[in-house]
Amino acid sequence: MQAPTDNKILLAHGGGGQLSEELIRQVILPRIAGEVLPAPGPGGRALHDAATFKVGSEWVCMTTDSYVVKPLFFPGGDIGKLAICGTINDLAVVGARPVALSLALIVEEGFPMASLERVLDSIGRTAAANGVSVVTGDTKTVEAGSADGLFINTTGVGVKRQGADLGFDRVVPGDRIILSGTIGDHGMTILSQRQDIGFQTPLQSDCAALAEVIGQVLDACGGQIRFMRDPTRGGLAATLNEIVRATGRSIEIEEGQVPVNPAVRAAADMLGLDVFNVANEGKFVAVVAAEVADRCLDLCRRHPLGGQAAIIGQVKAGVQVPVVELVTRIGGRRIMQMPYGRDLPRIC
Amino acid sequence: MQAPTDNKILLAHGGGGQLSEELIRQVILPRIAGEVLPAPGPGGRALHDAATFKVGSEWVCMTTDSYVVKPLFFPGGDIGKLAICGTINDLAVVGARPVALSLALIVEEGFPMASLERVLDSIGRTAAANGVSVVTGDTKTVEAGSADGLFINTTGVGVKRQGADLGFDRVVPGDRIILSGTIGDHGMTILSQRQDIGFQTPLQSDCAALAEVIGQVLDACGGQIRFMRDPTRGGLAATLNEIVRATGRSIEIEEGQVPVNPAVRAAADMLGLDVFNVANEGKFVAVVAAEVADRCLDLCRRHPLGGQAAIIGQVKAGVQVPVVELVTRIGGRRIMQMPYGRDLPRIC
Repeated sequence: MQAPTDNKILLAHGGGGQLSEELIRQVILPRIAGEVLPAPGPGGRALHDAATFKVGSEWVCMTTDSYVVKPLFFPGGDIGKLAICGTINDLAVVGARPVALSLALIVEEGFPMASLERVLDSIGRTAAANGVSVVTGDTKTVEAGSADGLFINTTGVGVKRQGADLGFDRVVPGDRIILSGTIGDHGMTILSQRQDIGFQTPLQSDCAALAEVIGQVLDACGGQIRFMRDPTRGGLAATLNEIVRATGRSIEIEEGQVPVNPAVRAAADMLGLDVFNVANEGKFVAVVAAEVADRCLDLCRRHPLGGQAAIIGQVKAGVQVPVVELVTRIGGRRIMQMPYGRDLPRIC
Repeated sequence: MQAPTDNKILLAHGGGGQLSEELIRQVILPRIAGEVLPAPGPGGRALHDAATFKVGSEWVCMTTDSYVVKPLFFPGGDIGKLAICGTINDLAVVGARPVALSLALIVEEGFPMASLERVLDSIGRTAAANGVSVVTGDTKTVEAGSADGLFINTTGVGVKRQGADLGFDRVVPGDRIILSGTIGDHGMTILSQRQDIGFQTPLQSDCAALAEVIGQVLDACGGQIRFMRDPTRGGLAATLNEIVRATGRSIEIEEGQVPVNPAVRAAADMLGLDVFNVANEGKFVAVVAAEVADRCLDLCRRHPLGGQAAIIGQVKAGVQVPVVELVTRIGGRRIMQMPYGRDLPRIC
């Protein structure tokens, strides 16, 4: 017999953690996916942020995301910037050059036109700054009380870069894990805004488009880059656990190497949150061959969006139950688990 | 000075009529669109349901739509079938063969899992029946009271068919207007469900995917088909008025030739609605060269989704103020205006 909560959608189903994954694997995929989605990896069906299919002689990538962030405006960004950057990043981490975006708005009756204009200005600015085009759109309105102000969907289409060959199946023991900068900034910023917590050091979302820095890394090290992902909902812990599940290989992370802004760490500690589970919106994780790790790191650090990049760990040989293992600052070891998903709803 | 309502979003901004168009032209496009959107037609910037751009040697079309229909389940369909059909249709009417769809869900906390499963089953069935693939997706959850149960965004990518050359600029005087069947079925069904009006003859949405019948027409008459559109929000009146504005040519419609189910007409009359403004979800309008009109009509009528197709009018030579003119059953003439947009929110 199912527990009563099994019969209703919970907020945690959208948190990017274990419950999200179960919903996707058990409820959604069996119903909508034929043989068309990417084939299962060793740890189950591999879920990518973007799908790839052939058009003529080109490989085209496609990704979609809805944005329901609350509040709509926050230090470091807004729902519009978040949407454009998020879609660009989802394309960039699968090795695609963004070509075209769609923009769909669901706006609540009574929503201030000035706020809509502010969001649209931000969308236009972010798209232009990153050389991508919003090519088509849709606007729906719903009655007051039927949507929370404004929801945005952006879907992106990109073309696979020459030389990029990214996939879970390319990850081998000894590969290094590069993280492009500090973690937790976006999630903690949203949470502190929402709960109106006045931290002494103001927090700021890391919301940014990563196509340029990722493009530089791929151009320089192409085939030696095994896999990339932007650790959004569910944070670094969700991304690393997905890699472990899909590859069947363990990952070892040096806690002391993971960059965290002190203010973010203090805020997370105060609220009892694990910063590894907190969402980022301007960071990427790259699994790279050991021999190019230093070169990749150097490239990241030269870019304004990768100044605090670090090699945070490596892929280990397979064991019976592969895990993400965290080597703590004092040399202890603990397992970094897949977040369950209830920590932070409405974060993006 | 602006009226106070100018500063807030109204439901009518999403109705598909004049206010929708003003929002898009005056608020959205100036902020997000560079030179990348389709060039302006003679009547202003041409707004297509899908954008076209080049990938390698192929022309790729992309379209996006959010679905906020209320109720989620209705005679003839549900929000899932509506989303898949709507996206397929938007690609089909620009002459594209649907290739891939994305599916983004915004689900409210507490939404029954069984209802979600029912919608997903419908999505899977509709996609499979039409040979298109859902290749990527996203699921967000929001707190109870923050979204009205379930919103869906589907974005579609297709590849332009060989020989299809559709555009407002190809429309010339003498072209015939073909309508693929009865109008108003979807909109009146939703409205009667929502208001719990028990009509004697039960209404049923026309929700259907038109790629096959449109493909047959394009394959047979290719270059002689000038323009196509599916008359959804804003109904036949909005579609015809868009053609008139973008081409600068008048259109004359024979009211007696426009097929309307008697039950739909009765329901519309009873509620004081103009059936020309009511949404359809399984119909298309084609502007075709006079010499192929009979052949196209015959092709439509042989298809299960075009059994009641009719030639409803023609394009006239340009005049100073081009209009859609309706020749009534008794020979009178009146102008079929662009709907303002307030009639039917949450219709799709």
